[in-house]
Amino acid sequence: MPVSIPADSVGLVEPQVAHFQQPLKLLSGRSLPEFTLVYETYGELNAARSNAILICHALSGHHHAAGYHSIEDKKPGWWDSAIGPGKPIDTNRFFVVSLNNLGGCHGSSGPTSIDPASGHHYGPDFPMVTVHDWVNSQALLADHLNISQWAAVVGGSLGGMQALQWSIAYPERLRYALVIASAPRLSAQNIAFNEVARQAIMSDEEFHQGRYQKHNTLPRRGLKLARMIGHITYLSDDSMREKFGRELRSGKLKFGYEVDFEVESYLRYQGQTFSEAFDANSYLLMTKALDYFDPAREQGDDLAAALKPALCKFLLISFTTDWRFAPERSREIVTALLEARKDVSYLEVDAPQGHDAFLMPIPRYMEALAAYLSRVANEVSTDAQ
Amino acid sequence: MPVSIPADSVGLVEPQVAHFQQPLKLLSGRSLPEFTLVYETYGELNAARSNAILICHALSGHHHAAGYHSIEDKKPGWWDSAIGPGKPIDTNRFFVVSLNNLGGCHGSSGPTSIDPASGHHYGPDFPMVTVHDWVNSQALLADHLNISQWAAVVGGSLGGMQALQWSIAYPERLRYALVIASAPRLSAQNIAFNEVARQAIMSDEEFHQGRYQKHNTLPRRGLKLARMIGHITYLSDDSMREKFGRELRSGKLKFGYEVDFEVESYLRYQGQTFSEAFDANSYLLMTKALDYFDPAREQGDDLAAALKPALCKFLLISFTTDWRFAPERSREIVTALLEARKDVSYLEVDAPQGHDAFLMPIPRYMEALAAYLSRVANEVSTDAQ
Repeated sequence: MPVSIPADSVGLVEPQVAHFQQPLKLLSGRSLPEFTLVYETYGELNAARSNAILICHALSGHHHAAGYHSIEDKKPGWWDSAIGPGKPIDTNRFFVVSLNNLGGCHGSSGPTSIDPASGHHYGPDFPMVTVHDWVNSQALLADHLNISQWAAVVGGSLGGMQALQWSIAYPERLRYALVIASAPRLSAQNIAFNEVARQAIMSDEEFHQGRYQKHNTLPRRGLKLARMIGHITYLSDDSMREKFGRELRSGKLKFGYEVDFEVESYLRYQGQTFSEAFDANSYLLMTKALDYFDPAREQGDDLAAALKPALCKFLLISFTTDWRFAPERSREIVTALLEARKDVSYLEVDAPQGHDAFLMPIPRYMEALAAYLSRVANEVSTDAQ
Repeated sequence: MPVSIPADSVGLVEPQVAHFQQPLKLLSGRSLPEFTLVYETYGELNAARSNAILICHALSGHHHAAGYHSIEDKKPGWWDSAIGPGKPIDTNRFFVVSLNNLGGCHGSSGPTSIDPASGHHYGPDFPMVTVHDWVNSQALLADHLNISQWAAVVGGSLGGMQALQWSIAYPERLRYALVIASAPRLSAQNIAFNEVARQAIMSDEEFHQGRYQKHNTLPRRGLKLARMIGHITYLSDDSMREKFGRELRSGKLKFGYEVDFEVESYLRYQGQTFSEAFDANSYLLMTKALDYFDPAREQGDDLAAALKPALCKFLLISFTTDWRFAPERSREIVTALLEARKDVSYLEVDAPQGHDAFLMPIPRYMEALAAYLSRVANEVSTDAQ
């Protein structure tokens, strides 16, 4: 709990709920007959409704990006370092919308929701959702909020893929796309890590083919392993060395399978905590959404052709030690955008933290975001006059 | 099965067994009261007994490094590309010894052996063995073979650590140490991957705290996951891209959790096959031996000081795309050896295959091995005259 809410915080926030009664047709061919999206907003929408920014979350993210739900909260939202009054995503100037994506487990329709058709939890029957579907559902949320055009769509990692998809699917509905620590599609190695995580979950005896809720249990061991694997890929070799090195937990080798090294203890704890808090079916869905994202596929693997419809301007940011989505992956997008004659800025931030860097208040990164978005704010406020 | 045994093969070989009745004191403080080592030899020991090369295996290796056990064999030994008449480790000139390490599951004493004290399988009661202990047991094998000094000790990955340990523990008993695709100790990231693999095995319900043999079962799911994780770290991002790219197994996305991408199918198959063939307790032991190896620790993290006792000459080889034990890790050893004023040669091979490259007949690598070992052969044959 913060002793008091910091002055540069958006303060106490309350999640809001939007119900959509119309069916949402999905990329898979299936439909959701109706659905719910949970979201938060920070700042004020201007009279011209032109200063809205959409925040798209990554694999295990959710709608609570900034501020506190109660003064009892130990921690603020997941991107509180970047969103708030006077912060890079400045809530004095922007109206920020952050939602939980479909298929998640934080309030929007997903595997833990009740299927209106059966009256039971969807569980594994929740349809596969993709980046394509998320962006379509986000467009319906924009309609609901009466926002015809976002000033910017912003996302890191899987969130960056959503920003990219917005630029392709709804070119007239965003002015800027900020694609951070992302990739135009997963590499075979990325897919391989996701597949091991999925196998860990699905081979857990408590998984029960996804119907663990019915069996009154949770596939904790599988989800713990999945998170441990994921976690290694979020950190750089350097940052792990700096954080843990080869420090021994108890000062000496144990010659057994209890924890010897600090890094083992850390990973076990991270995995355990996550396995109690996140839904396994949601995790499976999110990893598949990552695997499936590939806008170039339908254009004969020509990413420039896929990006051709875009009308917005782009900011791409990558981090030097990120090996999950390395700077080369961002440069693939930059190259394709240049080839498609789009307006693109690119920043490679020197940072030791690996993929996780995109969530951190690294000065060079925050300054660049602030400077870029300040120009965007000036532009939309001029329009509004 | 080869239609006929190739001319440059060592041909049909037969594993041999050495029993040691004396107790082997281990680094952990425990002892093995007696033990067995299984080994193979290729080529002829010269009269001076000076042309022997010891091959040390890596994580899941064994004694069968070259040739065939029967003409029915589909594949030769694991390093057949490098060992044979006229090959880089030339059996026309060298007497090559290759053993299965203690704790393994291919015939040497290990968790699947019978504990003479109880009459039952050791299982999880087999004591933790380390690189230090392996080298001590290999020295006893050298005594058994009446080899007072190896012409060279050669190993890749975990095998390279054994070659390094030989140079420290028995400086007068080897002329050359060939340390390939190795590291002076694991990084936090390396340990983290091993820990996830161990957690996968130990959290399998069929593991039964290592007593799966007693329960007439095997922790196949855990071992499969462990191998899948390991396998990703053996391949480079590049080689996975080249091998699988984003190829779809059935030509289209399935929107389910069956195999979509070729890389998923490959990993599942590799993991499954391994889980039927390798012992889980052995796998746990081997990963801990990797984690524990750290010759610099006792010297206040000063690797040069740790290597000071060495009298042999060193050849270090690394591979550009190896990210498990990257070239920087080999250069750490080279730097320490130079600081300790040792004779060291270093080659960084440009190879796309990642860590697995050390097992492959890459021309530049094979030529370097051949040239270096040819000098060694000349030296020991001159001595023998």
